[in-house]
Amino acid sequence: MYILITYDVSTKDKNGAKRLRQVAKYCQNYGQRIQNSVFKCKIENYMLPSIENDLKNLMDLKKDNIKIFKLGKNIDSKIISLGKNTEYDIEDILIF
Amino acid sequence: MYILITYDVSTKDKNGAKRLRQVAKYCQNYGQRIQNSVFKCKIENYMLPSIENDLKNLMDLKKDNIKIFKLGKNIDSKIISLGKNTEYDIEDILIF
Repeated sequence: MYILITYDVSTKDKNGAKRLRQVAKYCQNYGQRIQNSVFKCKIENYMLPSIENDLKNLMDLKKDNIKIFKLGKNIDSKIISLGKNTEYDIEDILIF
Repeated sequence: MYILITYDVSTKDKNGAKRLRQVAKYCQNYGQRIQNSVFKCKIENYMLPSIENDLKNLMDLKKDNIKIFKLGKNIDSKIISLGKNTEYDIEDILIF
């Protein structure tokens, strides 16, 4: 299943920038950053509860907001991208 | 149908901030801001091409990136919100 993780991490307090980096770094384990605060991830359904839990431990539940959108299995027809594209295709074969 | 509009508008050049405000103001016509650069909108399918077109006219296609995610009709079960909630329910009855 594909999920979208979008996050608003408050950077007003000095720990905010640190939390922001940690959340972004964590999301990178599961997918790719497609916009500044938007990650597109491909996971197995059973992984969702632990991802939720991990994110709760990284964020400040009173100051930050993270949303997870379940997009289902096929997403190509569900996404329209306008302007400068900032993505690469997770499915592409990485040639070293 | 519900759609999600997420946008990265480059504010490095002086027109960027103006474009950012215009894109946000435009999205407000169709739904609610649920995070800093994320809008949740409820539209009719036929409206999507003109929304796409309008956004293209507001943004800088070389510098900015806007994504539209089609979430379908029922989204309550598709969204998980963690931390400080920044939403109100579009369906709620507004009492004046």
